[in-house]
Amino acid sequence: MKKKVDLNCDIGEGFGAYHMDTDSEIIRCITSANIACGFHASDPLIMDQTVQIALHAGVGLGAHPGYPDLMGFGRRNLQASPAEVQAYVTYQLGALHAFARSRGGKLSHVKPHGAMYNMAAKDPSLARAICTAIYQFDKNLILLGLSGSCMLTEAEKMGLSVAREVFADRAYESDGTLVPRTKPGAMIQEEEVAVTRVVRMVQEGRVQAVDGTDIAICADSICVHGDSPKALLFTQKIRTALEDAGVQIVPLAEVVRE
Amino acid sequence: MKKKVDLNCDIGEGFGAYHMDTDSEIIRCITSANIACGFHASDPLIMDQTVQIALHAGVGLGAHPGYPDLMGFGRRNLQASPAEVQAYVTYQLGALHAFARSRGGKLSHVKPHGAMYNMAAKDPSLARAICTAIYQFDKNLILLGLSGSCMLTEAEKMGLSVAREVFADRAYESDGTLVPRTKPGAMIQEEEVAVTRVVRMVQEGRVQAVDGTDIAICADSICVHGDSPKALLFTQKIRTALEDAGVQIVPLAEVVRE
Amino acid sequence: MKKKVDLNCDIGEGFGAYHMDTDSEIIRCITSANIACGFHASDPLIMDQTVQIALHAGVGLGAHPGYPDLMGFGRRNLQASPAEVQAYVTYQLGALHAFARSRGGKLSHVKPHGAMYNMAAKDPSLARAICTAIYQFDKNLILLGLSGSCMLTEAEKMGLSVAREVFADRAYESDGTLVPRTKPGAMIQEEEVAVTRVVRMVQEGRVQAVDGTDIAICADSICVHGDSPKALLFTQKIRTALEDAGVQIVPLAEVVRE
Amino acid sequence: MKKKVDLNCDIGEGFGAYHMDTDSEIIRCITSANIACGFHASDPLIMDQTVQIALHAGVGLGAHPGYPDLMGFGRRNLQASPAEVQAYVTYQLGALHAFARSRGGKLSHVKPHGAMYNMAAKDPSLARAICTAIYQFDKNLILLGLSGSCMLTEAEKMGLSVAREVFADRAYESDGTLVPRTKPGAMIQEEEVAVTRVVRMVQEGRVQAVDGTDIAICADSICVHGDSPKALLFTQKIRTALEDAGVQIVPLAEVVRE
Repeated sequence: MKKKVDLNCDIGEGFGAYHMDTDSEIIRCITSANIACGFHASDPLIMDQTVQIALHAGVGLGAHPGYPDLMGFGRRNLQASPAEVQAYVTYQLGALHAFARSRGGKLSHVKPHGAMYNMAAKDPSLARAICTAIYQFDKNLILLGLSGSCMLTEAEKMGLSVAREVFADRAYESDGTLVPRTKPGAMIQEEEVAVTRVVRMVQEGRVQAVDGTDIAICADSICVHGDSPKALLFTQKIRTALEDAGVQIVPLAEVVRE
Repeated sequence: MKKKVDLNCDIGEGFGAYHMDTDSEIIRCITSANIACGFHASDPLIMDQTVQIALHAGVGLGAHPGYPDLMGFGRRNLQASPAEVQAYVTYQLGALHAFARSRGGKLSHVKPHGAMYNMAAKDPSLARAICTAIYQFDKNLILLGLSGSCMLTEAEKMGLSVAREVFADRAYESDGTLVPRTKPGAMIQEEEVAVTRVVRMVQEGRVQAVDGTDIAICADSICVHGDSPKALLFTQKIRTALEDAGVQIVPLAEVVRE
Repeated sequence: MKKKVDLNCDIGEGFGAYHMDTDSEIIRCITSANIACGFHASDPLIMDQTVQIALHAGVGLGAHPGYPDLMGFGRRNLQASPAEVQAYVTYQLGALHAFARSRGGKLSHVKPHGAMYNMAAKDPSLARAICTAIYQFDKNLILLGLSGSCMLTEAEKMGLSVAREVFADRAYESDGTLVPRTKPGAMIQEEEVAVTRVVRMVQEGRVQAVDGTDIAICADSICVHGDSPKALLFTQKIRTALEDAGVQIVPLAEVVRE
Repeated sequence: MKKKVDLNCDIGEGFGAYHMDTDSEIIRCITSANIACGFHASDPLIMDQTVQIALHAGVGLGAHPGYPDLMGFGRRNLQASPAEVQAYVTYQLGALHAFARSRGGKLSHVKPHGAMYNMAAKDPSLARAICTAIYQFDKNLILLGLSGSCMLTEAEKMGLSVAREVFADRAYESDGTLVPRTKPGAMIQEEEVAVTRVVRMVQEGRVQAVDGTDIAICADSICVHGDSPKALLFTQKIRTALEDAGVQIVPLAEVVRE
C-alpha cells in the first residue's frame, strides 16, 4: 500500500491593513490549512476570506489558536494557567468554526500556534487543557502536533485522533525533540538535504539526529511555509520529491483515519 | 390567554481582573442573558464562567456581540463596513456558541451591543450585515432588537425570528424611537412610573411618548440591569408588578415561538 | 527669495511581525517623517527603530497619533469625545517624544492620522482637543494639517504654529476640501498631471479644482507615500520637478518659522 | 535624626468603563503614587484623571509600566526580549510623563508592575533593559524596586537612584526574597503582626524570615493597597503605627536623596 502524508501550512496570518498576499498561492500546494483565529494574528474579516480561499482550494480546514499576544505574534512564552489556555482554545476554535459553518464547510483539525504549541509539547497540564477544549467542543477533530510530543500522548489518552507533524527545515535531537533555534545546526540550510530527509521520514519513519544517531520518527503531516517566493518553491520541491517517491499527498483526515 | 414577556439582561461584562460581581444575583431575576463575547467586554475565561452561571440558572443564552472597542465599552459609533460588521458578529457568535456547546448548552438568541445595536436600529445595511451573520450561522437563532426598529424589519425579511425589546427606564419619541440620552427627559427617573409603564407596554401594547402622545409599542422582552444593588431591586419590582398583573415571565423562545 | 516646501511621509506603520520594509528608502527622499505611535499602527520596538532611522536621515520628527483602532488602521471614524481625543494625542505624543529624547533627538511636529485627521479637519471641537493636547505638552510643536481646514484655524487661534499640507494625488473641491475617495475623479491618476499640479501649488499657490475652477491653496508641505516601488519613484519625480522649478525642499520648521 | 519612609500605592488601574473608585481615598494616605500606563491597565483618559488626582494630593508621581497583557493585568510572565522590555518602558514612561507635564507636574520615580517587576528582580538582563530605558529618558528618576533584588543592583551600577521597597503583607525567605504566593505562609494574615513587622523593618532594618531566622532588610518605601475598604483601613493603621514610632512619612525623593 502506498504511503500517505499531509502537507500543512499556517495561513490567514495578516491583520487589519497587513495582508499576506501569498496565501492564495501556497494553498494550491498543500492539503491542510491552519487558519489563524485572531489572537496571535488575523481578524474576523481576514478569517472569513481565508476560510473561503481554503474551501475553494479543497484543503482541510484547521483552527490555529494562539496566545493573546498580537504584538509578539504568539511566539513568546506566556505563563497562562491551564484554565485560561483551555478557554483561549475554545474561543478561537468556536470563532473559526463559525466562519466555516457559515460558508458551508467544516473543520478537520486544530494545530496550536507558536509558543502555545511549543509549551504544550512539553507540559502535560497545558496539553490536557488544549485537548479538553477540543474534546468538549467536538471530539471528532484531529489534533495536529509535534511528532513524539507529550501533547499527542495526552490527546490519545483522552480519545482524540492525533496527527504527527514533522519539519522539513529543522534538525532533531536524539530524543526526537527539535533542536532549539538558538543552537547551531537548528535549521537545515541545504534544500536538497531537507527534501531527502522529508522523503525518508515519510517512507522509512527515520531521520538522522543532530548528533549523528539515527532515530525513529512518525510523519503524518509535513509543516511547510508559503510566506516568500523561496518558501513556495521549496514546498513545490518537497511535493514533487514525495510524489516521485510514490508517496500520496492527501488531507490530514485521510492520513489519520484509516 | 395570559400575556407573556421575557426579562433580559447583559451579563459577563467584566474583563481580565475587572469582575462583575452582581452577575450571579441578577441571573436569578431574569429569563434571558445576553453574554458579552470579548469585543466590547469579557474574555474567554469570563465567557466560560458566565455560560456556566447562565446554564445553571436555566435562562436563555444569547450572544451579545459588539464593536472591537474595549476602551469605549462598545458604546462609541464606529464607521465599520457592513462586511466588517458581519464578520464581527460571526466571530463573536461562534466564540460564544463554542462555550455553550462545550458546557452542554445551546444559544437561543443574539442581541447586538451598544453602538452596534443603535446604529443597526437605523441603518438597513448594517442591520442586514448582522442578520446575515446570524442567518448563515444558525437560522433558528432569535434576533433581539429595539422594538419598531429597522433591524427587526430586515431580520423578518430574511426569515429570522425576532423579539421586540422595550426599556423600562427610557423615554420614547412619538415615532417609537428612544429619546437620546443627551436630551432632557430621556431617562424615566421615578421607579413607580417606570414600573407602571412597563406593565402597560406588555399588557396593552401602548406607552406615553415624551411629547404626551400615546403610541403603540410591542414588548416581547424588557431590558433590565443588574450592575448595582439599586438596579437589582428595581428589576425585582418590575418582576413582581408584572406577575401581579397576571403576566407570565418566560424565556425569549417561549414568547417568540408560539 | 526661493520658495520653500517640505515633503512629509507617514513611516513606522508596521506592527509586531508586520514590517514596513520601504521606510529606509523613502526616508532619503523626504524632509519630515510622521511616525506612528502605537494606536493605529506601530509598537514600542518599531517606534524606537523608526526614530533612529529618522534621526540618522536627518529629517524632522513628527508624532502621528491616531484612533485606538489597530484593526481598522485608524481609518474608521470613531465617535470619541473631545476629552478622549485630547488624552489620546497626549499619550501618543508623549510616547514618541520619549523615544526621540532617549535617542538624542526632539520632535518638530504633530500630524494626526487617518480618521482623526479627517474628522478634526471639519469639527472645531475635535480640532481644539488635538491642539490643546499639543499646546499643553509643548507649545513649540508645529501642527501639520489639511491646508484650509478648521483644524489649522483652531491651532492658530490657540497660538500654535501650523503647516498647511497638500496632496499630490488627490483632487480638490472648489471650496478647497478634498474630493472624497468614494467620488469619481477623487484621485489624480496621471503622474505627470500630479507633478505639474504640485509644482504650481507651491510656486503659485493655486490649483484647478475638480469642477474646473481655479482656486487658491497654500502649500507648506506635500504628503507623499513610500509603501511601494511605484510610490517611491513618484516621490522622486515630485522632488526633481520641484528642484528643477527652483523650489527649496527643507524640513517643516524651516518652512514655517521664518 | 528621625527615620523616614515613603508609602507607595498602585493607582489608576481601571480601564475604559472599569473604574477604581477608591483611588481618591487611598491617595490621601500615601506619599507616592505608581500610576498605570495603559499596558497592564489604564487608558489615556484615566491616566489624565489620575495624574490630576495625584498632583492635587501632592504625592510623588511615578510611572508604573507593565507588560502588554491587559487580559492578564500584567501579572503573567511573558518571554519578551530585553530590547522589547526596554521599548515598553520607554513608551509607557513617555506617555505618563506627557500627562504630568501637560498638567504642570513632573515624575519622581518608576516602579515596574507585576510580572515585569518580579522577572526583573531576578534577571539582570531584564533589569538592565528597564534601567536603560529610564536612564536614557531621564537619569534623575528614581527606580522603586524590591529591596535586595538584582534590579536595584543593576540600577545602581548604571548610576540611577534607587528606592528599596518592602511589603507589609508578605513573608520573606531567609535570603530576603518574597515567599511565593503559592507557598503556605506567603501572606501575613494578622494585621497586628504585619504592622509590627513594618515598623521594625523601618526602624531596625530587620525582619523575621519565614524559617524563623532574623534577616537584614532595607526599607525606603512600603507598598500598600487601596482597592478595598479593608485595605484602606490597614494602610491607615500602618501609617499611624509608623508615626507613633516616630517615623516621618515623606515622598520617595526625600527618603532617597539625602
